[in-house]
Amino acid sequence: MRAALKVAVLGPTGYSGHELARILVRHPRVEPILLGRDNGEAREKSSTRVFPGLSGDRNYSLHMFSWEILRQHGVELFFLATPHEVSRDIVPEAMDRGLRVIDLSGAWRLKQPEHQAVYNFDNCGSAKAGEIMDRAAYGLPELNRTQIAGANLVANPGCYATSIILGLAPLLKAGLIDRKRGIISDSKSGVSGAGKEPTARTHFVSVADNLSAYSVFSHRHTGEILEQLHLEAPELIFTPHLLPIPRGIFSTIYVHLVQPTAPKTVKACYRDFYAGSHWVRTFPTPQLPQIQFSLHSNYCDIGFCLADDGQRLIVVSCLDNLLKGAAGQAVQNMNVMYGWKEEEGLN
Amino acid sequence: MRAALKVAVLGPTGYSGHELARILVRHPRVEPILLGRDNGEAREKSSTRVFPGLSGDRNYSLHMFSWEILRQHGVELFFLATPHEVSRDIVPEAMDRGLRVIDLSGAWRLKQPEHQAVYNFDNCGSAKAGEIMDRAAYGLPELNRTQIAGANLVANPGCYATSIILGLAPLLKAGLIDRKRGIISDSKSGVSGAGKEPTARTHFVSVADNLSAYSVFSHRHTGEILEQLHLEAPELIFTPHLLPIPRGIFSTIYVHLVQPTAPKTVKACYRDFYAGSHWVRTFPTPQLPQIQFSLHSNYCDIGFCLADDGQRLIVVSCLDNLLKGAAGQAVQNMNVMYGWKEEEGLN
Amino acid sequence: MRAALKVAVLGPTGYSGHELARILVRHPRVEPILLGRDNGEAREKSSTRVFPGLSGDRNYSLHMFSWEILRQHGVELFFLATPHEVSRDIVPEAMDRGLRVIDLSGAWRLKQPEHQAVYNFDNCGSAKAGEIMDRAAYGLPELNRTQIAGANLVANPGCYATSIILGLAPLLKAGLIDRKRGIISDSKSGVSGAGKEPTARTHFVSVADNLSAYSVFSHRHTGEILEQLHLEAPELIFTPHLLPIPRGIFSTIYVHLVQPTAPKTVKACYRDFYAGSHWVRTFPTPQLPQIQFSLHSNYCDIGFCLADDGQRLIVVSCLDNLLKGAAGQAVQNMNVMYGWKEEEGLN
Amino acid sequence: MRAALKVAVLGPTGYSGHELARILVRHPRVEPILLGRDNGEAREKSSTRVFPGLSGDRNYSLHMFSWEILRQHGVELFFLATPHEVSRDIVPEAMDRGLRVIDLSGAWRLKQPEHQAVYNFDNCGSAKAGEIMDRAAYGLPELNRTQIAGANLVANPGCYATSIILGLAPLLKAGLIDRKRGIISDSKSGVSGAGKEPTARTHFVSVADNLSAYSVFSHRHTGEILEQLHLEAPELIFTPHLLPIPRGIFSTIYVHLVQPTAPKTVKACYRDFYAGSHWVRTFPTPQLPQIQFSLHSNYCDIGFCLADDGQRLIVVSCLDNLLKGAAGQAVQNMNVMYGWKEEEGLN
Repeated sequence: MRAALKVAVLGPTGYSGHELARILVRHPRVEPILLGRDNGEAREKSSTRVFPGLSGDRNYSLHMFSWEILRQHGVELFFLATPHEVSRDIVPEAMDRGLRVIDLSGAWRLKQPEHQAVYNFDNCGSAKAGEIMDRAAYGLPELNRTQIAGANLVANPGCYATSIILGLAPLLKAGLIDRKRGIISDSKSGVSGAGKEPTARTHFVSVADNLSAYSVFSHRHTGEILEQLHLEAPELIFTPHLLPIPRGIFSTIYVHLVQPTAPKTVKACYRDFYAGSHWVRTFPTPQLPQIQFSLHSNYCDIGFCLADDGQRLIVVSCLDNLLKGAAGQAVQNMNVMYGWKEEEGLN
Repeated sequence: MRAALKVAVLGPTGYSGHELARILVRHPRVEPILLGRDNGEAREKSSTRVFPGLSGDRNYSLHMFSWEILRQHGVELFFLATPHEVSRDIVPEAMDRGLRVIDLSGAWRLKQPEHQAVYNFDNCGSAKAGEIMDRAAYGLPELNRTQIAGANLVANPGCYATSIILGLAPLLKAGLIDRKRGIISDSKSGVSGAGKEPTARTHFVSVADNLSAYSVFSHRHTGEILEQLHLEAPELIFTPHLLPIPRGIFSTIYVHLVQPTAPKTVKACYRDFYAGSHWVRTFPTPQLPQIQFSLHSNYCDIGFCLADDGQRLIVVSCLDNLLKGAAGQAVQNMNVMYGWKEEEGLN
Repeated sequence: MRAALKVAVLGPTGYSGHELARILVRHPRVEPILLGRDNGEAREKSSTRVFPGLSGDRNYSLHMFSWEILRQHGVELFFLATPHEVSRDIVPEAMDRGLRVIDLSGAWRLKQPEHQAVYNFDNCGSAKAGEIMDRAAYGLPELNRTQIAGANLVANPGCYATSIILGLAPLLKAGLIDRKRGIISDSKSGVSGAGKEPTARTHFVSVADNLSAYSVFSHRHTGEILEQLHLEAPELIFTPHLLPIPRGIFSTIYVHLVQPTAPKTVKACYRDFYAGSHWVRTFPTPQLPQIQFSLHSNYCDIGFCLADDGQRLIVVSCLDNLLKGAAGQAVQNMNVMYGWKEEEGLN
Repeated sequence: MRAALKVAVLGPTGYSGHELARILVRHPRVEPILLGRDNGEAREKSSTRVFPGLSGDRNYSLHMFSWEILRQHGVELFFLATPHEVSRDIVPEAMDRGLRVIDLSGAWRLKQPEHQAVYNFDNCGSAKAGEIMDRAAYGLPELNRTQIAGANLVANPGCYATSIILGLAPLLKAGLIDRKRGIISDSKSGVSGAGKEPTARTHFVSVADNLSAYSVFSHRHTGEILEQLHLEAPELIFTPHLLPIPRGIFSTIYVHLVQPTAPKTVKACYRDFYAGSHWVRTFPTPQLPQIQFSLHSNYCDIGFCLADDGQRLIVVSCLDNLLKGAAGQAVQNMNVMYGWKEEEGLN
């Protein structure tokens, strides 16, 4: 067995970064170091303070980020669990230094300028950004395994995007969907998807006993979904909602099939597409996934219900936004990049 | 001022019945008696046991139901907060005895036989049921004020149905919606909507940290919505979900307009339709209702968001399923039936 | 009937201030104006923005605070729902201007310097503060009715303090408790008690699926409890915990009685003490209050359980921290100050 | 390496049994079979139905229990996740058949007849029960490692009992506590501790936005705590509360020390007692454990806060009731019984 791969995580104190640290510390093939972006984050070296749930585990000590510390530790693979502005700044130099990068932000997911606009990339990133973007692989292994395996920069997908793309890709590839009738994803997410920053919107009293819609017709993940599924903007409506739960995503996806279709055809479509994909589970009709089923796992669960007319189809796609929707998928991408089994370190 | 109207509530220990009792006890124009359906329900006369939240309030004592007790108390208006089978049994005799009835169950809401099928009415109700059904008014005051005012039997609408019908009626009446493109209501409800019966599905551990869809393409409220909105079955998809909150409904409704339309036209459509309707609030764009805003009130809150193309429209409709979705609406119906202000006793 | 009393609320956008506004707008004897402390708060005059749950109700328009606006409106009674530093600044001038004041903060609750220390009053308030403090009435009507009725400044009690004092006062007055054995209140509160400021601690993800203790041996409400119950500091342990619910307080209070006592004696002690106190409900053994029972009401619910030895006694005291623990109690105090029934406007 | 140990789980569809199955399927040293107690439980062989969260994993297929199936699979160790009545019936025969047993119920935890009374053992179990009870080891490894290692029957502790015993044992052993002053454990538990049976008490609407106390002075776990800590009944008050969360226990424990003591003495007392105990974490003052920190882990977290007088001490003890409070501890006991590392299979 080859020596452990040296990896680093920048930003391990956010929700996704924390999950990433937790997984990597136990992954049998890697040796991680955890890096804080500034004194504030890195100061508290005691794991008890930063990760009280991980009290007493020495593996969680934090270092302050510098290129030098990466060099000293012989880091080969660099995970960024940072805001997209930070990722735009750091990735060009990381590429220059010969590091492979898995970036969990939205910094490198979008090829098409009209989709990039929502991120205001003009205010961040170097002149090389355009060229780097061209080489980035969109890190959804179920769609892009080969590309990810050979990539030096993997753009880890958004949580909503993962749930919606995995729910739709098999049907679109098989040409079953009448795109002109429009596709609607009514998606619901737990609060950790909104990040760790305390805001009026994430205050417990604002979320508990409540449901709200937000970013209607304007959520940032829309571009990823369109690009990966080769859809035109008017063909997709994606409406995010904030659920009073800490984690989990549930997408209820409405499509119209081009012709009356049997349930078994739909089932076969999913089964064939996801043959060999350990981390997607398709549910036998009439059972539908629920958020609890995939919580604390790297699974994306997919089920469907077809109307009697054989054309109106509802797909339900669930996942844990911090795992298959973020940190778990990042580790799955690493497994693909290094030729390991995709479930390695994720059970 | 005329003497207080004598009313009775059958079934005040369920969630809707409890809310109904709570409102009627404080309503300035009525004098309620509360009736249990069997010894089990009526035995505990101590209000502390049956209504611990209402401890010490003598007005909540329970009596055992009999026609005789209704006669003794001079009851004129009879509220049924009972399962639909019970309502089918009781209403014919209540009508014969000259009582006016507001029934909160699904027993008398549906005129069309194909919609009634889901209730298995053959197994309950008398031979007169068909004739009675014809005379029942569907108790949504914002649509049917006149009919309700003159009715002896008011069928109080379902909670989901109220939220969806009120969100769509103005647009459909104005002919703005392209019905051929299909209407989708992705609706989410708190757990009290599933009733007080303890089941595996309503167990705290099954609901908390979760979201699930249920009765996909087959929920009982579908028929009401179709009938009241004059839609054909294939034109509507209604998908209910169970939220991890005690009460509240949120419907995200997707429609396609017949032609590009300005937001102000949509706004005017709602404003005109609900002019004079105290219990519907329309929100100024871009603000959308949230479940918290109408909780513990009789309001149905409606907001919308129109895509740039002026055709893809998302309507959000929220209400408290136990108030505007059940007990509050029942009291509003009573207010209409007796010519009182619709907000009487509901603030 | 005399003309409506003119009252003003400063700080109606916090949790307690919001509840206070909601109650006063419906109170039959008063006419309130709502005042923001700065441009930020007062700017949004549209009630829809500041109070989305109160959308469309013109009574909730906000004005910017000034002494002049109080004069113009003929305000007689001034409610302060402000941080204690602000209350320390404003109250002296309000007294000079002849206003009566009900202050919801901790600014004027404490007579003894050793208890005041936790508030750092040196940094706020005028030279007259000491004299003003002497004249302030502690606004717990069940203990201090007479004093409140004649006071110009009423210091509305803390939420925890209300639940604990009401649970203990009857037993202490009757001399039933062995104070040397120590009194413990293990108290649990919903998150609204921690205020509306978004912090890491009030983030939904920090609170949900969790319980934590805080301010152990050091909570600010301790001084109030000691003063009102005439206890020495070592005789009381009070431990607050943060519950994953929006509102409600539950205090489990442990005392040791001086001698073996019958349950009926304990019951009589509470019954006698609270005779004539509408807003305290004592529960019949063995039933104990739960948070749900008093939620959205102004009740403080009290129950108890006595061990077989007749000496180890557990008292449970529940209330809604925003009502009997804040805004409801403030209105109850107003009712006492003006000689109205204590339940006026609070049902 | 020796061949995998064959183990069986009876009752894998309850909450504790489910967690136990989940852990054992991944444990590197065992090969489990899962057994249903009746046709109802065993019928659904499809893992998707019984364990929807474990969909598609063949390891979760269920068999119907019989002694024959245990023999066929060569089972050596038998886990019972069954009601205590069932455990009383099954264990005597299991012992006769030479099986080692870890029982998660309360059937074999209590030596003293006065504590057994609450379980009504007269109605279940064979004549040999008394003799078997004498040989049962109380399965708390941190106290009874040696006895557990040699036992054929291990009585897995109750969840509350584990949190309270681990919080108190070091202090009592060191003689620091003034037992005459009384010990109080105010404990709070998530709903899974109440079992999977749907009841009025576990209905989502009864639990959400609520807190309640129950079994005051009478909870079944009291006997275990007294026996393991060698306390007399009047020395301990244990009050359980039901939290609106799915899982987790938080015990706030109040003791009085025999003399003024330094925090470092208390700290050393815990540190020495739990040296070598992987699954107990002691927190550095002033940090206290929270339920979230130990959730989904086998840790019991302990922290404390000492009053300035050095005598009034508050201990906080947290754990996941389904792991360290049930299934995790059962696996830890297995690890001890077979001489493996205590953390084996539990990370």
